[in-house]
Amino acid sequence: MAPQPLIKSRQTEKIINGVSTQVICTEFSNYIFIVLTQYGKIGTLISITPDSRSGDISSSMFTTKVLLGKDEALTHVYAKNLVTFVSQESGNRPVLLGLALKDSSLETMKVVKDMIKSCQVW
Amino acid sequence: MAPQPLIKSRQTEKIINGVSTQVICTEFSNYIFIVLTQYGKIGTLISITPDSRSGDISSSMFTTKVLLGKDEALTHVYAKNLVTFVSQESGNRPVLLGLALKDSSLETMKVVKDMIKSCQVW
Repeated sequence: MAPQPLIKSRQTEKIINGVSTQVICTEFSNYIFIVLTQYGKIGTLISITPDSRSGDISSSMFTTKVLLGKDEALTHVYAKNLVTFVSQESGNRPVLLGLALKDSSLETMKVVKDMIKSCQVW
Repeated sequence: MAPQPLIKSRQTEKIINGVSTQVICTEFSNYIFIVLTQYGKIGTLISITPDSRSGDISSSMFTTKVLLGKDEALTHVYAKNLVTFVSQESGNRPVLLGLALKDSSLETMKVVKDMIKSCQVW
């Protein structure tokens, strides 16, 4: 029998505006787990779940829920903005996201999103 | 300047009673993240947090909370049994545990605990 594949995990690091930024993506069968951190922390933990009717027309809908940390309106916006594409690309799998960014500027978000793409495990 | 260390993550795999079992441990500054899985899933997600007064006399106390999945009494027992030592060894850091075991026999628990020890990232 061939050996079972191990859990796929990739990470990358970049300095964004002088701040060391780490991205780690790990694939589970029922979740993609992603941490985006500028503090080395997991930070706010958010689940991003596609609604069951998604995948048909135009942009699908997502439910976001803060599991750990401060539940702020903007956190939900950032979470959707950052990882909706991961769910879509991974067969509508939910995403578990740890978010600990000092800087939430559009420019930083764009770079972080590219970092996620470079750690594709799905 | 020396390069920042990347996020430390280790994993291992073992066949326990014919069931492929994966363990992955990842270190964050505020959490140790551990997944124990026999399904490739994250499974039930539990936070195990040492009470603030812990660390002084005898065995410290822990608060467990199910963040995702079914909240069953035994889940809290298994979680404490499996990862209390991780928190103690890592300077009382909380543990975020994904638990997806088919088999919760004492024998399996013992092997899984040894697997966690072999993936020490703290």
